[in-house]
Amino acid sequence: MLLQVNMGYGRQSACGDPLSLWQDRPAKQAIVNFVEHVIDPSDAAYVPPEDRIVTIDMDGTLLCERPLSVGMVFVESLLHELAEAPQLQGRQPFDAVRQDRLDTLRKEHFEMFFGMSGAGLDEDAVRQKVRTLARQGRHPRFERPYRELFYRPMLQLVSYLMQKDFIIYVLSGSDQTVVRTLCAEVAELASLPPARFIGTVVALDVEYGAHGPVFYRLARELEPVNLRTGKALNILYRIGQYPIMAIGNSAGDCDMLAATLGSGYPSTLRLLLRHDDGQREYAYPRADNSGSHRDGPGLCQAQAGEDILAVSMKDDFRQIFEPSAR
Amino acid sequence: MLLQVNMGYGRQSACGDPLSLWQDRPAKQAIVNFVEHVIDPSDAAYVPPEDRIVTIDMDGTLLCERPLSVGMVFVESLLHELAEAPQLQGRQPFDAVRQDRLDTLRKEHFEMFFGMSGAGLDEDAVRQKVRTLARQGRHPRFERPYRELFYRPMLQLVSYLMQKDFIIYVLSGSDQTVVRTLCAEVAELASLPPARFIGTVVALDVEYGAHGPVFYRLARELEPVNLRTGKALNILYRIGQYPIMAIGNSAGDCDMLAATLGSGYPSTLRLLLRHDDGQREYAYPRADNSGSHRDGPGLCQAQAGEDILAVSMKDDFRQIFEPSAR
Repeated sequence: MLLQVNMGYGRQSACGDPLSLWQDRPAKQAIVNFVEHVIDPSDAAYVPPEDRIVTIDMDGTLLCERPLSVGMVFVESLLHELAEAPQLQGRQPFDAVRQDRLDTLRKEHFEMFFGMSGAGLDEDAVRQKVRTLARQGRHPRFERPYRELFYRPMLQLVSYLMQKDFIIYVLSGSDQTVVRTLCAEVAELASLPPARFIGTVVALDVEYGAHGPVFYRLARELEPVNLRTGKALNILYRIGQYPIMAIGNSAGDCDMLAATLGSGYPSTLRLLLRHDDGQREYAYPRADNSGSHRDGPGLCQAQAGEDILAVSMKDDFRQIFEPSAR
Repeated sequence: MLLQVNMGYGRQSACGDPLSLWQDRPAKQAIVNFVEHVIDPSDAAYVPPEDRIVTIDMDGTLLCERPLSVGMVFVESLLHELAEAPQLQGRQPFDAVRQDRLDTLRKEHFEMFFGMSGAGLDEDAVRQKVRTLARQGRHPRFERPYRELFYRPMLQLVSYLMQKDFIIYVLSGSDQTVVRTLCAEVAELASLPPARFIGTVVALDVEYGAHGPVFYRLARELEPVNLRTGKALNILYRIGQYPIMAIGNSAGDCDMLAATLGSGYPSTLRLLLRHDDGQREYAYPRADNSGSHRDGPGLCQAQAGEDILAVSMKDDFRQIFEPSAR
């Protein structure tokens, strides 16, 4: 009873440990230390709330991206639908899909598929399909809907940063509409406005009807693809402020991590998540040519310098996914 | 003394009339009526704060765009600098600039100039040049710095909407960096983060130095140009929510006005500012082929329907500019 009364006075104590799903190791200490300095007006590292920008990668950083990212699963589901259309029989890439040569296609033609797969669909239909996939699609190994593949410690970190008045941006190489729709299915991210989710944009055309504009997908994406240099460029184009903190997991995130160096604030933080837990998630090969996590913090040194904090899923995460409801 | 005590209790009374620079005419009444309904949780037209998006054009809507928009003045200043470079002698368009044939160039080649004029400059240099222009450049007729060419009643409307928890976006066809830098010079707009200013984006490249990324201008702009259809597309790409209110002054704004019809809310508001005050500002010809204000609300009917509110600068604005300090 006394405890309950006390809880009313201090938010910190009411929440207990805001990063309870993180092991008490250097990564957690570095995060908390950074945040506590940055929010303290008497500290030399203080950053006012309007400049507390944090940019976070999605695939492989906020949720599982293996064997395929949700955006890629979505592209494949569209290709499968297209492959059913009789007028497309005998034409590539649809025959290849039918023949289950998806792995080959993915490696060889993914960029072609990206915009093409949804051409002609209106954005409402795209959102509806992604929502269904997020709720009903099943991850082949974990046998749970895709929206339950977010890493609990990362969502807890997002909530902690929000509570400290950080301005959260999710920067993903995936289709922006997929990113916005998928993240809206997750309680910790649902309160963020769509503008905070920046992905690769599929070009649209617009028509005007009685109920306002209808947006149709064209068969191509807009520049820049939101990976590598594209993430730094979109930080300028779309946010217009440098982040003081950035979190990624692959070579595609290095430019985003480097952008923190432009903020001008004395204390900034760069995190790289290491996929080293084959038992609970995946252990990525060290020399993976896909660009995902080659050699930890060393990965981004060319762009972002040496001061990068490695987070180990194996050692730093007490838990990975939400305990299954089944 | 009694008045002062009372003022402490109610924000409304403390501020007096929040639209004191507007004449008591139907336009002002329609705006106040719309806002009062939208913010009242017991009203059928209520819109929660997170959906109170308003999109506002800049050139000709927030500030004077004649004889040239500030973005255009900036392009010309860059061309003049380029024209001084000896290695460019004898080449177009630089010779034409030198020969003062700017009017011809503007009409014939403006799109070519847009991205080209700043190619090779880094973004910090661009911002510095725009800031100097905003503070020291002089409007040829009104003889005041460009940052003092904002319409006071429109800035008062912006402040009123902010006070009512509207989420302000400025959508301009001008160079996005010019828009952000110019508006940051105006007290009423300076508190808005850069992400709230969406313009036509000049493509950049990035290099990494000791102090983070440096962005250089390429000689082209990114798709979409933020006019007409581009404004509707950027509402989806960049905001991801439909506005409930939109304010423009030209054919370039019709798609933005039409986007309000997609919000799904019962009450939305579309304003078109009419330049009909040749004495205090400019009276645009009715059949102006530049696309700026042809025939009032009828201008946008094809996209946005008939329910458009005309605002007359002559009849609705008590004052246009800040009284000159000189």
